Amino acid sequence: MPSAILIAAALDTKAEEADFLRRELERAGCRVVMVDIGMKDPPRIKPNITREEVLRFAGLGSVKEYPKLLEGMKEGLVKLSLDLYAKGELAGILGLGGGVGTYIATAAMRALPFGLPKFMLSTVMSRDIAEFVDTSDICMMHCVVDLAGLNDLSRRLLSEAAWAIAGMANNAEPLRLTGQPKVGVSMFGYTTPCVNELKPRLNSKGFQAVAFHANGIGGSTMEEFVKQGLLDAVIDVTLHELLDSMYGGFCGNVKPNRLKEAGQRGIPLIVAPGGLDCIVLKELRSELKSRPHFKKDFRFVIRSSEEDLLTLSKLIAERLNNARGPTRFLVPLKGWSEVDSEKTGFYSRRLIELFVEELRKRLSPKIPIVEVEAHINEPFFAEALVEELEKVFSR
Amino acid sequence: MPSAILIAAALDTKAEEADFLRRELERAGCRVVMVDIGMKDPPRIKPNITREEVLRFAGLGSVKEYPKLLEGMKEGLVKLSLDLYAKGELAGILGLGGGVGTYIATAAMRALPFGLPKFMLSTVMSRDIAEFVDTSDICMMHCVVDLAGLNDLSRRLLSEAAWAIAGMANNAEPLRLTGQPKVGVSMFGYTTPCVNELKPRLNSKGFQAVAFHANGIGGSTMEEFVKQGLLDAVIDVTLHELLDSMYGGFCGNVKPNRLKEAGQRGIPLIVAPGGLDCIVLKELRSELKSRPHFKKDFRFVIRSSEEDLLTLSKLIAERLNNARGPTRFLVPLKGWSEVDSEKTGFYSRRLIELFVEELRKRLSPKIPIVEVEAHINEPFFAEALVEELEKVFSR
Repeated sequence: MPSAILIAAALDTKAEEADFLRRELERAGCRVVMVDIGMKDPPRIKPNITREEVLRFAGLGSVKEYPKLLEGMKEGLVKLSLDLYAKGELAGILGLGGGVGTYIATAAMRALPFGLPKFMLSTVMSRDIAEFVDTSDICMMHCVVDLAGLNDLSRRLLSEAAWAIAGMANNAEPLRLTGQPKVGVSMFGYTTPCVNELKPRLNSKGFQAVAFHANGIGGSTMEEFVKQGLLDAVIDVTLHELLDSMYGGFCGNVKPNRLKEAGQRGIPLIVAPGGLDCIVLKELRSELKSRPHFKKDFRFVIRSSEEDLLTLSKLIAERLNNARGPTRFLVPLKGWSEVDSEKTGFYSRRLIELFVEELRKRLSPKIPIVEVEAHINEPFFAEALVEELEKVFSR
Repeated sequence: MPSAILIAAALDTKAEEADFLRRELERAGCRVVMVDIGMKDPPRIKPNITREEVLRFAGLGSVKEYPKLLEGMKEGLVKLSLDLYAKGELAGILGLGGGVGTYIATAAMRALPFGLPKFMLSTVMSRDIAEFVDTSDICMMHCVVDLAGLNDLSRRLLSEAAWAIAGMANNAEPLRLTGQPKVGVSMFGYTTPCVNELKPRLNSKGFQAVAFHANGIGGSTMEEFVKQGLLDAVIDVTLHELLDSMYGGFCGNVKPNRLKEAGQRGIPLIVAPGGLDCIVLKELRSELKSRPHFKKDFRFVIRSSEEDLLTLSKLIAERLNNARGPTRFLVPLKGWSEVDSEKTGFYSRRLIELFVEELRKRLSPKIPIVEVEAHINEPFFAEALVEELEKVFSR
């Protein structure tokens, strides 16, 4: 069967709108699979996949109690979408709804792999949508008019949504994984010079660099990409999120799988302690005032302590020791971020040596620690990173 | 000149990506106006409109200081976009960027009218985006890979963004304002039955209903639509946001122009006090415990007080008295929302009569107050609302 756009909609309250979307998609040359996720009244148009079939994907028969029904519908749509995707029948997924519809449809979108068009027409987009979007390449449109019938205005919004996903599904350059191996690289503002030095060096060796902004969601996204098999190696040069997560810092909202997925998948992993020198917080807590610190825009930047580095060395060793692939740890001895310098009072050779000593105690002997007499942002360090990658990357 | 998609991008750091977007849009048959909003290094590709020209739209020459430069660039892009739109040269706007790029580009999107395609490819979407989106029909896509060069993955994201907005701009059903007059109707869960009764009655009289969910952003959006001339009349049957805003309630995040725009524009306005009986809060504050209340899902619903109604009557009268168009206030005497009943202990004839008395004292004699012996959600009340609209609506 040719692949189709899945429309997820409650066909009790949003039938007219869903039907309009179907017609627009067909006009755009797309096949449609209409999935009913309604939970109240009977569907007002006939779906291709009924709500009962969706629930059956979650292993449920007829459910009445609302929270169980809601969770079942969500789980069912996730499994159904993954099933269609696995069979090669999915060209994209289009959801429309308010709070509940967005909750259910985006769960399926988050479960689907990168590169499959995902479009949510939602009345509840003008707010915090971190939960809905997470690390996924979701596209969301603010449905400013309530989905309560067709009119000149809602028709325009619905038509835009349909043609947007049709444009993506029918025409966008396919996700073509060229032969050139992709290397995930983590960065944040204070390690950007390092990544800028890395990119041309990786390119000249036949790699392509894929950067992730290590702001919490970025590091988690890199892990997700490794899990989906989209990366062939990782140069994880910015571990800053791990430090921030100890303090509830600005980039600290990272998932527990950080620094684990590359090891689990067994791809080459080169690590460096970028940003482990500085905590970034919205407020300067009193217990941190005695440390070197300064105010940057609306945030404070504070030097990490000896104790922080002990904790981090333990955590890093634990995660890396489970790696199945070649893994190396490089330490730039002259500083770990743009602000790790004598000027800010952040730079401390003693702290760096202490970290190396602790890491050496804990890290499996299979994982070499390479000390490099350079600052992380110096070209020489980027060269060392690429050199280590080349040593372990087999083509 | 035929209309074009405006690309807003920092051509110092995002030149490669912007150039790729341009090529994809041209492949999709779109004309492109490339606008540089870079603020650091010189542009790496040639724009159609330079950053200096953008700043000139904000009345600025060369600026160096960052905050001033940033605000100037934002204001300049807003004015430039509105200027192109006014000349009929804008087919859509496509932004790409991180925090700063999203801040600048979405400001222009918010300023542009409903129905013009607006697409933001943003690395900072997985968070609270209320400020970026506000009441606008913005479409946003999560750019999960950092915009730091082209690779197999970023190419896919960029191509999807280009084809999505091209699909919207080239094919979506145009915003056609049919002859059928559009009536904005405010609703929330507890007044939905009223709106469901209203819709077919409005249709049968040749109107089309456009519903707005009065959750704070919805009421503000209805006002914005009135301002943009997209509505021909308003049946503002859910004033709940005004009560919630007095308590920082769930739907209380409403703008100060609520209940003002229809009057200012002089279009017919029929008002009813829907939802002024109940405050909806995430927490039950101790000073409210003595009032009738109950717990609904994760929120508490609390009866409004005599004092609240006095305050509201004053506020409503102030705003309505400025109306230049025909305005009427209808009071359903048997309850103002689904929960305004004897069963919950919310219903109070005394409070309703008090409100009417106070409103009558303050409201201009030009604005009739019509008391209706019905509950707000009864068909009879919907009939009364449509009847009043018909009296004042001239075709």
